[in-house]
Amino acid sequence: MDDLLAQLRAGLPADALITDPDVTASYAHDMASFCAAGAPAVVVLPRTVEQVQHVMRTATALRVPVVPQGARTGLSGAANATDGCIVLSLTKMDRILEISAVDRIAVVEPGVINATLSRAVAEQGLSYPPDPSSWEMCTIGGNIGTASGGLCCVKYGVTAEYVLGLDVVLADGRLMTTGRRTAKGVAGYDLTRLFVGSEGSLGIVVKAVLALRPSPPRQLVLAAEFPSAAAACDAVCRIMERGHTPSLLELMDGTTIRAVNAMAHMGLPETTEALLLAAFDTPDPAADLAAVGELCAAAGATEVVPAEDVAESELLLQARRLSLTALEAVRSATMIDDVCVPRSRLAAMLDGTAAIAEKYGLTIGVCAHAGDGNTHPVVCFDQADPDESRRARESFDEIMALGLELGGTITGEHGVGVLKKDWLARELGPVGLEMQRGIKQTFDPLGLLNPGKLF
Amino acid sequence: MDDLLAQLRAGLPADALITDPDVTASYAHDMASFCAAGAPAVVVLPRTVEQVQHVMRTATALRVPVVPQGARTGLSGAANATDGCIVLSLTKMDRILEISAVDRIAVVEPGVINATLSRAVAEQGLSYPPDPSSWEMCTIGGNIGTASGGLCCVKYGVTAEYVLGLDVVLADGRLMTTGRRTAKGVAGYDLTRLFVGSEGSLGIVVKAVLALRPSPPRQLVLAAEFPSAAAACDAVCRIMERGHTPSLLELMDGTTIRAVNAMAHMGLPETTEALLLAAFDTPDPAADLAAVGELCAAAGATEVVPAEDVAESELLLQARRLSLTALEAVRSATMIDDVCVPRSRLAAMLDGTAAIAEKYGLTIGVCAHAGDGNTHPVVCFDQADPDESRRARESFDEIMALGLELGGTITGEHGVGVLKKDWLARELGPVGLEMQRGIKQTFDPLGLLNPGKLF
Repeated sequence: MDDLLAQLRAGLPADALITDPDVTASYAHDMASFCAAGAPAVVVLPRTVEQVQHVMRTATALRVPVVPQGARTGLSGAANATDGCIVLSLTKMDRILEISAVDRIAVVEPGVINATLSRAVAEQGLSYPPDPSSWEMCTIGGNIGTASGGLCCVKYGVTAEYVLGLDVVLADGRLMTTGRRTAKGVAGYDLTRLFVGSEGSLGIVVKAVLALRPSPPRQLVLAAEFPSAAAACDAVCRIMERGHTPSLLELMDGTTIRAVNAMAHMGLPETTEALLLAAFDTPDPAADLAAVGELCAAAGATEVVPAEDVAESELLLQARRLSLTALEAVRSATMIDDVCVPRSRLAAMLDGTAAIAEKYGLTIGVCAHAGDGNTHPVVCFDQADPDESRRARESFDEIMALGLELGGTITGEHGVGVLKKDWLARELGPVGLEMQRGIKQTFDPLGLLNPGKLF
Repeated sequence: MDDLLAQLRAGLPADALITDPDVTASYAHDMASFCAAGAPAVVVLPRTVEQVQHVMRTATALRVPVVPQGARTGLSGAANATDGCIVLSLTKMDRILEISAVDRIAVVEPGVINATLSRAVAEQGLSYPPDPSSWEMCTIGGNIGTASGGLCCVKYGVTAEYVLGLDVVLADGRLMTTGRRTAKGVAGYDLTRLFVGSEGSLGIVVKAVLALRPSPPRQLVLAAEFPSAAAACDAVCRIMERGHTPSLLELMDGTTIRAVNAMAHMGLPETTEALLLAAFDTPDPAADLAAVGELCAAAGATEVVPAEDVAESELLLQARRLSLTALEAVRSATMIDDVCVPRSRLAAMLDGTAAIAEKYGLTIGVCAHAGDGNTHPVVCFDQADPDESRRARESFDEIMALGLELGGTITGEHGVGVLKKDWLARELGPVGLEMQRGIKQTFDPLGLLNPGKLF
């Protein structure tokens, strides 16, 4: 341990190391606080690529595990420390190095906050679409590590779609450049994409070239109330089948609506069983909303209310954004599933989740990026009650089993971390898992990078 | 050899094997006919996944290399046979297994022709955007292997963006499923994307889940004439900088225009030095074309002609599609570069290419997916003239060196194959190359899959 600190200090400024256990303990875990986490030996906050290389060379020399971290807003424990590890926080490498409107790219360090980048590019008429709920806090490096999604994905896709090239420090401290800064490129295997969603297990991202888009027009939102989740899902299917391209298509079930009302008194319709929010950022959003409103009515909506303007639209989205927080207030803790199914199976997923809630006697509220088929069943439980905690975990697992059965995936956008390791193996099967481990072995033969995550 | 045929026959119907050397010779190479190619021992045309597994198990047992092939329309020799290999042609596995408008996916076998799929999904109001020039012949499996682009990429991206999941037969005959059939998913490393563009070197794709989009409105095209390539490139930069989203933005240089005229008498403007074609498939394409026309004029266009209708638009695109064929008619052979640069460096790329043509005393016509910065300098030469052939290869290489110097890549969409192997190593650098080789080793430890390609 003394050896580790001495060697780290040899290549890092004094203020880049934290060893006070009270402080290092605060770096122990991400937002999945109920996942196991160890005590880091040291927290390192490098400011340069060379400093990151020094950390990795030291870790390799001394065989010390390294846990890379961004803002620790992840929901799967992927950034949780292991005992005696180096926590490598990239939050101080937070410079936007370049924004080009002609090339439609930004070049950034990993610690740049998503919202900071979004605002910086907006000033130049550009947009960086990926918008995870934590966008005001989370870092681009964390977004890349966890392959974050967000509300915009139904039209604009996920983080992976916007990462063109990377600079990566490998486990042994060598620097590798992947990808490109061009619009297209197919030179060799796509290592860039391999790093997106790899949860820091293959290397440390120290620079990223990101694709940008022109700023879209402001979106207008419509809210539709349904007597059942199934009817709302039917509306989603009709909307997508008819070729619409909403910029957002979100669903809140009755449990979620009532939790949001209880918390924020937003006056959402208490008796409705599902609220669908659809938005368009097209040249004529009102016309698109009118067409979608008709499809909602045909699917059984009892009320269809297009927002009059951008302000009213924002208010509706605020309710959606409050969903997780509101459900967290129901009991002392939550486990958030992230099952994504083909949207044709969305109704089966929601009905099945309701049955699971009833079976286990738990409150499970569902909000969903319905246009993507990506559901977030939120299992509410009291951590102080062992039996309720056990039932929570069992229902959490049963929801993933249901997702796989419906042709879905255990994680649409939150990642695997430590929370879903067993389930990753089930989803991939033995051959896929063997190949994934082979790739890990290629990049990190000593197994030092974020050990115990993914598989 | 007898052993090989006997073992292959044990698991394949008689009509799935071709051993007649006159016939097998015709499977020796793709469209980069000047690249070295060996004589296959046998050509196998399986119809089922099990048959592909049998071929790979046999190849592994007997240590025989396997060269997977689609329609052999590739331009880099990636499908070229090696001496004594099994050519594994996937062209008989050509069923469209599923098309879903709600889930916006198609599930296909690898031998489905791109145009066949495009037409089948169009009947359901859907679109499969990737449109390589060879779309009437090339297969989806080949598109996946080479990560094909096309004219649509500036708005709709490349093949990689549309591959959600794969079934792959590994080198040892085991079957692996990657990815998903959902809109989103981040379960483990992105093996799907790793296979796209891997030129059959990691496994045999036997099924693919593809993302579809709603059919866009028919596009309208505008043609603009410029006194120099640089002025046309300036227009491209202005168009993209102003936030336009053309569905196509193509450039033909003076050499290409005159070659097309010589071949097809299309009445293109003989004296102009660059023709830019811009298209929009937006709700009001005429308005978008008007705005883009003004930007062209501001960049120095001498003539701006929006097509009156879809028919006129098609005529303009026909000229563009004839470019390669027309340049092939200039001398006996062509080598087609595929350098992609940041679009801000497009003018430097075109001017530099013209200087290289002059230096080597060769005709090099350039057509380009200008909106992507993806240029196709076509080096025309007489294969019977050794000195001219040498100069052609040198200029072909110098164009790639220029591309790298300008921050670009040696291949935007045609791949590496055997043609650009040395250059891939230069682009990736030693660390990147080592990691790529490590991945190859993981999937194909005996080095049987398409040996001698990529690196």
